[in-house]
Amino acid sequence: MGAAPGGCRCVKPSKLLLSLPLLSAFLLVRGESNVHAMDNAATEMMAEESHRQDSANLLIFIMLLTLTILTIWLFKHQRFRFLHETGLAMIYGLLVGVILRFGVHVPQSTSDVMLSCAHNASPPTLLVNVSGRFYEYSLKGEVSRGKGHQVQDDEMLRKVTFDPEVFFNILLPPIIFHAGYSLKRRHFFRNIGSILAYAFMGTVISCLFIGLIMYGVVSFMKIVGQLGGDFYFTDCLFFGAIISATDPVTVLAIFHELKVDVDLYALLFGESVLNDAVAIILSSSIVAYQPAGDNSHSFEGMAMLKSFGIFMGVFSGSLALGVATGVMTALVTKFTKLRDFPLLETALFFLMSWSTFLLAEACGFTGVVAVLFCGITQAHYTYNNLSPESQDRTKQLFELLDFLAENFIFSYMGLTLFSFQSHVFNPLFIIGAFVAVFLGRAANIYPLSFLLNLGRKNKIGNNFQHVMMFAGLRGAMAFALSIRDTETYARQMMFSTTLLIVFFTVWICGGGTTAMLSFMSIPVGVDSDQENSSSTALGGSQRRNTKHESAWPFRIWYNFDHNYLKPLLTHSGPPLTATLPSCCGPLARCLTSPQAYENEGQLYDDDFDFNPNEANVSSMYADVTVSTDSSGSHTTNRKRSSTASTGGGPTDEGMDHELALAEHEVAIRGTRLVLPMDDPVEPPTTVTLPPPPSPPRSDPRRHRL
Amino acid sequence: MGAAPGGCRCVKPSKLLLSLPLLSAFLLVRGESNVHAMDNAATEMMAEESHRQDSANLLIFIMLLTLTILTIWLFKHQRFRFLHETGLAMIYGLLVGVILRFGVHVPQSTSDVMLSCAHNASPPTLLVNVSGRFYEYSLKGEVSRGKGHQVQDDEMLRKVTFDPEVFFNILLPPIIFHAGYSLKRRHFFRNIGSILAYAFMGTVISCLFIGLIMYGVVSFMKIVGQLGGDFYFTDCLFFGAIISATDPVTVLAIFHELKVDVDLYALLFGESVLNDAVAIILSSSIVAYQPAGDNSHSFEGMAMLKSFGIFMGVFSGSLALGVATGVMTALVTKFTKLRDFPLLETALFFLMSWSTFLLAEACGFTGVVAVLFCGITQAHYTYNNLSPESQDRTKQLFELLDFLAENFIFSYMGLTLFSFQSHVFNPLFIIGAFVAVFLGRAANIYPLSFLLNLGRKNKIGNNFQHVMMFAGLRGAMAFALSIRDTETYARQMMFSTTLLIVFFTVWICGGGTTAMLSFMSIPVGVDSDQENSSSTALGGSQRRNTKHESAWPFRIWYNFDHNYLKPLLTHSGPPLTATLPSCCGPLARCLTSPQAYENEGQLYDDDFDFNPNEANVSSMYADVTVSTDSSGSHTTNRKRSSTASTGGGPTDEGMDHELALAEHEVAIRGTRLVLPMDDPVEPPTTVTLPPPPSPPRSDPRRHRL
Repeated sequence: MGAAPGGCRCVKPSKLLLSLPLLSAFLLVRGESNVHAMDNAATEMMAEESHRQDSANLLIFIMLLTLTILTIWLFKHQRFRFLHETGLAMIYGLLVGVILRFGVHVPQSTSDVMLSCAHNASPPTLLVNVSGRFYEYSLKGEVSRGKGHQVQDDEMLRKVTFDPEVFFNILLPPIIFHAGYSLKRRHFFRNIGSILAYAFMGTVISCLFIGLIMYGVVSFMKIVGQLGGDFYFTDCLFFGAIISATDPVTVLAIFHELKVDVDLYALLFGESVLNDAVAIILSSSIVAYQPAGDNSHSFEGMAMLKSFGIFMGVFSGSLALGVATGVMTALVTKFTKLRDFPLLETALFFLMSWSTFLLAEACGFTGVVAVLFCGITQAHYTYNNLSPESQDRTKQLFELLDFLAENFIFSYMGLTLFSFQSHVFNPLFIIGAFVAVFLGRAANIYPLSFLLNLGRKNKIGNNFQHVMMFAGLRGAMAFALSIRDTETYARQMMFSTTLLIVFFTVWICGGGTTAMLSFMSIPVGVDSDQENSSSTALGGSQRRNTKHESAWPFRIWYNFDHNYLKPLLTHSGPPLTATLPSCCGPLARCLTSPQAYENEGQLYDDDFDFNPNEANVSSMYADVTVSTDSSGSHTTNRKRSSTASTGGGPTDEGMDHELALAEHEVAIRGTRLVLPMDDPVEPPTTVTLPPPPSPPRSDPRRHRL
Repeated sequence: MGAAPGGCRCVKPSKLLLSLPLLSAFLLVRGESNVHAMDNAATEMMAEESHRQDSANLLIFIMLLTLTILTIWLFKHQRFRFLHETGLAMIYGLLVGVILRFGVHVPQSTSDVMLSCAHNASPPTLLVNVSGRFYEYSLKGEVSRGKGHQVQDDEMLRKVTFDPEVFFNILLPPIIFHAGYSLKRRHFFRNIGSILAYAFMGTVISCLFIGLIMYGVVSFMKIVGQLGGDFYFTDCLFFGAIISATDPVTVLAIFHELKVDVDLYALLFGESVLNDAVAIILSSSIVAYQPAGDNSHSFEGMAMLKSFGIFMGVFSGSLALGVATGVMTALVTKFTKLRDFPLLETALFFLMSWSTFLLAEACGFTGVVAVLFCGITQAHYTYNNLSPESQDRTKQLFELLDFLAENFIFSYMGLTLFSFQSHVFNPLFIIGAFVAVFLGRAANIYPLSFLLNLGRKNKIGNNFQHVMMFAGLRGAMAFALSIRDTETYARQMMFSTTLLIVFFTVWICGGGTTAMLSFMSIPVGVDSDQENSSSTALGGSQRRNTKHESAWPFRIWYNFDHNYLKPLLTHSGPPLTATLPSCCGPLARCLTSPQAYENEGQLYDDDFDFNPNEANVSSMYADVTVSTDSSGSHTTNRKRSSTASTGGGPTDEGMDHELALAEHEVAIRGTRLVLPMDDPVEPPTTVTLPPPPSPPRSDPRRHRL
């Protein structure tokens, strides 16, 4: 770079000297020879001070989270259920926000230097030539407009305000990945058509609906003279997009704990996971729609089409990237014997999943969306190739990351209500938004449910629809999308309103879920095992029904996945030698894992359940197997002791997972023997365990054939 | 802050416009009304571009790590042992460094803006007034001196160069915490006197020795005219301090895999863990010694004393903080029933451990050192209170974090050799440094071993001393300390030399460890179980010996810890009602956990082994217990299958850990019954498992009493 041709007189406010007496003493006595040493020492001291401050700020959050954890424990211990942990985290955040805002007065000791400059843009990197030495500065963001003169007053509050990109690049990815990774439920795939309808069409409907209502509200506000800045139709649509994303984790936790009907659970969970992805890309498409060179903000066909193109491009690109990384991980874990070393395997799994995010971001796609589909792919394929230890480890790792990130975001939300400095609370807008959100949700659920019920054998009942309507909580994603850009008046108003909507839905709707469920007479406490065994008692006919319930594109996909993808990417499924045409023989032999021949008995058995190692199924069989082991084996002991330790109350989610995982191996071993081997090509050669002496329940696999 | 009273003409290099044609087009056609919108769009675009670049850079490292993991697997699979994974990571880093340096030519598309300014210091935060809007910039660091004009050429290389503080604040803490957390070995405490001697006295000796030799070398260089800048005696001492830290992880991995003698392992591991802490604080004390206002750099009694005071203050402060957080976690986990919810427990454990680091940094102590002692305290107390699931989870979590951070640092080291732009390779200095490091290590090991052998019953043999001499690898800590400050000529030369020493020791010494061990006829392949059982065969007499081997301060500490701290902080140990004077009865009853009464039988048994749940012991008993379970239980199966899957070769560390942990519960249950209950106060009421029918080995506990 050419050296700066023109000089620049910069201003060092005298407060710098006043505030750091030590430093100023140094500066006053310095000689010419050691200017640099002095500068270094001063810089170092200030950097140290700033680092110390950062540590203290982060410490506030860690303490908040610790406090939240302890209170969650107390609530769980006492079986309070009216307030979920996320709501709790928000309350603590609020309290700390109040304290920071009104309780703490930081002495005006900032060492910021104000440079005035006629430069037109704010570059991401700034090189400052300080008496011949070059310092690199990176852009942290714009300081709230018109507040440049009172920046120092809000120093403390500004310090605890994180870069919004932290949410998108650090906190959301583990949450979304975990949602995808824990999505491995048969009921999800059984309802996939409805879930896709709610998530895609529903979110778009809700976005348009909210956008239109808000445009009406904003127009009215303009007439009344309540509007303090620009608010275009695209802003309204943008608000519709960000507020349409329902939160997977809050819903998931409450429903999981209450053990509601599995289909309702699957519908809500699936919708809320996928509509996050839709909302992200929808909102970025709407931003892209705004023609920056053209200030009209009016409707325009071409720009609309372009926006739609961007939506489709970014969505499919992110999806493809996520799936590709998942498939690559599956292939690597299949064709190496990495499972001998669980640490390496877990590390690889973690790194590959993370690289999806980075790759998508580097390619200009949406990392969070890519991570979601990567999670689903990893759960569907890679998970089956992992060693039992790694299955445990990866589940637990992402569960922990998810827990921490989730609670951090909700604490931060509470804190932001007081620490954010550009809130615009407009009563009219807020009331309008609440009404719009309610109506938007209704316009999503009821018409779509009606249409879906035309095609569904297993209808979505009215009570289910009301619960889905009620359970549309807004959470982390809506917050992250709205805090991302708070530059303009419109965005600030949206952010403040979003915050209030999140508070309301999490506290009121989240807290009232139990009451709502009993009011709607939805059966709670449905044990996933029981549900399974009752459907098991009905025998194969019902399962065949659920298969035929699905629309034909899904059935084609099921067969393709089961016959070709599963055997290619995992150790399970039928061997490729059996499914591929005989001309591909050598290739098929080369790609099929030896274990697949062993599992071949499941070929005709699992043509619908293409997720045979799924937690539900395995825990179902695990019961049978464990009960046959009458010698007091440790697995049985362990199960009993952990059930006892939860005091018979609602079992912890993590524990459930773990149990299912731990008994997974057992289940496979136990059931393989029961299977009638009607395919004589490759009979299994390793029969080591005796068959269960008296299976207490009818075994669906035996019934089937 | 007062608004800038004087204007500042800043310079926008024309390259900015050239490099971003889109942006410049925007800038050229803009109207007055939408300047801000334009600026926003331009800023956003640049920020996005920068974000994309960052993602791509991080992706390089993730790919590097993935590649490393796959190659590690291949090496383990093929049982290559001449190159350790850290050495491998460095090689890959080197290759990528070469490619980035010579292969990739980035178009000069930087959008940096050069501001020249007469300002005297470089403040950590800069507020730039861009046409009425304020942007906040944060200091990233100084750009290498005199290279301001060629900054752009090295853009790519600069981009992959991380902020050195990343190493101290993100990568080192998990490594050091893991070292502390996995330190829970009886052999460590058996040799604690010697370990402290090597770690404290040895490191100080080595630091002084290397400093003196280097001062000689530097003086010679000055005479010969090879010195291109200032190099004071304090710089020499600083070099001595940073290069005296031996690396725990590399040594640990090689020795663990080779299963060397447990005492040798404990000596080396303990020394390398503790001397990291010593080196950090020693180096910062030496920096503090440099009297900044006084340019003499000569010896001065008062400053020396002050430095020593800082050393002691920072060390004891960090130690106290780390221990305090550990104790707090132990108390929280003891007095709440958090163990019913492993996820909450693990999250709390993680957050408390992290808060140690932040707290220490916020208080001005050294976070890394605090984290080390926190890890030791957590392992010693808190670990016993955790549920088995959390014990697994925490171990695995920190193992993974340690693995990733360690390999990242070593990859980065390789990369730095080519990407760092201010290397100063001086042949004389390098040769001098190698000699000094060798002699410094010798001056640490041999004299101290001689002195220690005077007091030790279990002498440190000559061959052990040679191996300790040889195994003084330098690694992550030396690198992190040397990259922290590369401002001056002296520091740059130190950094380059440190890099070479790390490469040499990791490749040559690390790779030659196996050969060295066989040359020195050190028994390798000593199974920890075997070692235990042979010492077990000798009966209690030898164990009593090891107790009396320890010096009296340690014995007092042992008793205090066992009688008061363990029962107070954990569920194990003798009940406080038995150890406290009777006047404290109510308090003691209130503080003792109900489980302690159950464990009371161990009171007389474990007065030396105050670590009864230790992995070694448990795996020893686990063998016994598992073999009694003749019905083919899953634990046995699992053990067998994992032993089989490692092909009988060196078992993976992670797997060992896990096995030991999984069988830990079993072991406790199995052995409790064997214990003769000679304290009739509270006989255990829950006897569920039958006693082992035929214990194949003599049980030390039975022998003892």
